[in-house]
Amino acid sequence: MAKNVTVVGAGSWGTALAQVLCDNQNNVKLYDLNQEIVDDINQNHRNSRFFADVQLPVGLVATTNLTEALKDAQIILLSVPTKVIRDVLKTINEQLDHAVMIINASKGIEPGTHKRVSEIVAEEIDQTYLEAFVALSGPSHAEEVIERALTTVTCAATVADKANEIQKMFNNEYFRVYRVDDLIGVEIGGSIKNVIALAAGIIAGLGYGDNPKAALITRGLVEIKRLGAAVGAKEETFSGLSGLGDLIVTCTSVHSRNWQAGYKIGSGSNLQEAIDSMTMVVEGVRTCQATYEMAQALQIEMPIVETVYEVIFNKLDPRVAIAQLMTREMKPEFY
Amino acid sequence: MAKNVTVVGAGSWGTALAQVLCDNQNNVKLYDLNQEIVDDINQNHRNSRFFADVQLPVGLVATTNLTEALKDAQIILLSVPTKVIRDVLKTINEQLDHAVMIINASKGIEPGTHKRVSEIVAEEIDQTYLEAFVALSGPSHAEEVIERALTTVTCAATVADKANEIQKMFNNEYFRVYRVDDLIGVEIGGSIKNVIALAAGIIAGLGYGDNPKAALITRGLVEIKRLGAAVGAKEETFSGLSGLGDLIVTCTSVHSRNWQAGYKIGSGSNLQEAIDSMTMVVEGVRTCQATYEMAQALQIEMPIVETVYEVIFNKLDPRVAIAQLMTREMKPEFY
Repeated sequence: MAKNVTVVGAGSWGTALAQVLCDNQNNVKLYDLNQEIVDDINQNHRNSRFFADVQLPVGLVATTNLTEALKDAQIILLSVPTKVIRDVLKTINEQLDHAVMIINASKGIEPGTHKRVSEIVAEEIDQTYLEAFVALSGPSHAEEVIERALTTVTCAATVADKANEIQKMFNNEYFRVYRVDDLIGVEIGGSIKNVIALAAGIIAGLGYGDNPKAALITRGLVEIKRLGAAVGAKEETFSGLSGLGDLIVTCTSVHSRNWQAGYKIGSGSNLQEAIDSMTMVVEGVRTCQATYEMAQALQIEMPIVETVYEVIFNKLDPRVAIAQLMTREMKPEFY
Repeated sequence: MAKNVTVVGAGSWGTALAQVLCDNQNNVKLYDLNQEIVDDINQNHRNSRFFADVQLPVGLVATTNLTEALKDAQIILLSVPTKVIRDVLKTINEQLDHAVMIINASKGIEPGTHKRVSEIVAEEIDQTYLEAFVALSGPSHAEEVIERALTTVTCAATVADKANEIQKMFNNEYFRVYRVDDLIGVEIGGSIKNVIALAAGIIAGLGYGDNPKAALITRGLVEIKRLGAAVGAKEETFSGLSGLGDLIVTCTSVHSRNWQAGYKIGSGSNLQEAIDSMTMVVEGVRTCQATYEMAQALQIEMPIVETVYEVIFNKLDPRVAIAQLMTREMKPEFY
């Protein structure tokens, strides 16, 4: 049955997911503050800033008017940088006059509070208006989804039935959603993989090859599992699409913004410049800070996360930091 | 302390490992039947067939004479296709007149018998002459090791002390060996990842992108773990360098012969030609047969392995086979 879905954020991922939902005959509105992008979608059926050559469905409409965007919405799909998510939710909550389901497609943990997006939503949205929260996560570069290339992801929800509903709403012949009964694990895996992707980019930028990249991903998953165990996630979740799957795609694909940012740090001569050039959409930078804080607070050993933190926040020479990490601290614990 | 090591097989991996051992001041002989390669190494200090631009250590000598190769050898390092390993071992056993340690760097399982290399060695080498068997495995493309690029691998031995000795013999600033106390797991992981790499190559050849590649690797590891559990391996081994690490590097690096072979199957118009062009060094083809047989015998669900088997041995159209696998059978069991 067709749903009224409002996608908040017309970035690459929001646009790609909006297209999936349009393909499945839902009524989809894209909300974004950027008038140029909104006009491009409405007038040209394109989002040229992110997808130069893609013709979007004619039925996909966009607006800069939040009131209009929320009116009749049954489902709100969040796809904004986690840096602004709390403010966006506050604004939504002020305007909301009926119950909705909220799906989150952004990946990150808030520094300071160490909150996952589901927790931020619970704090900012009036509970009488929140039917359920669903996290959507997995190996899914927007650049492939917009081309309707086969993609498999997972969803986890605060209300089991709702995960089922979301799964049906998204599923089609190129986009497959599987349910996972572990919201914490899905959110943790999706967030921290961006920090490991920064590290993968840094080592590539420094000239390391495929052998150490594979070792780094392997050890990165161990760190993610370790933190997950400490915050109540199920270990098996990290061996699935939203854990290992997403980690692999983010660390090995040219589409990854986090990997690209790391590569700039590793290969550039000016560390400060590389760090400054990271816009707020490089989720890994912010999540690195949050994860580093969590590791310290929970006394969890996370040498890769710590190394990325030292490079980005304390300007440690990446060459020195990574050489130390790769030859000493990555020694697997059971070897 | 310097050891006398004879490396059997002057392919890319044997040559790269021989160089590591030379760098660590061991006395290394390379044995190979190919006179041209042997002459190239002795006269030009090159192995041009595999490494066009690499100058090998002057101390690295080669021979086509097995008697000479085995004389004084304390350690035999096997690096030959597993297809010939049983015959090679028979020949070695006939000539052996003193005890040696055998290290195996080849990865495969024997069709028909379902034996791992350690089991074949136990059958073919007179036990009074076998001090220990050691498996060396991990994410380690020869093309990077020969350039002395940082590489981390694992070893597992039939005699714990010997793993320690091997670790010390190999370790240097660019090559790091970690010990794992699970010979079965190390051998299973190293072997079956080649079948998953064939599948990864096939889907790339068919035009699938990075999202399904990540999903395939994720589900591939589940199949490997499932078989491992059935034959007595430890699950944690598959989350380490010789499991996940090696799987990632083989499925995502351009250096992988198995991936390349799969790519040819997926992208070529003539399936038979692609299969015929696989020489015996594409270990995944042979191991696919063995793994398929094991899965049938042990009643283990291995949809990826089965799909690769059907394509290679029963000439099933890869497009049909893979589409079926990716959209239906890869449905994760806990979703």
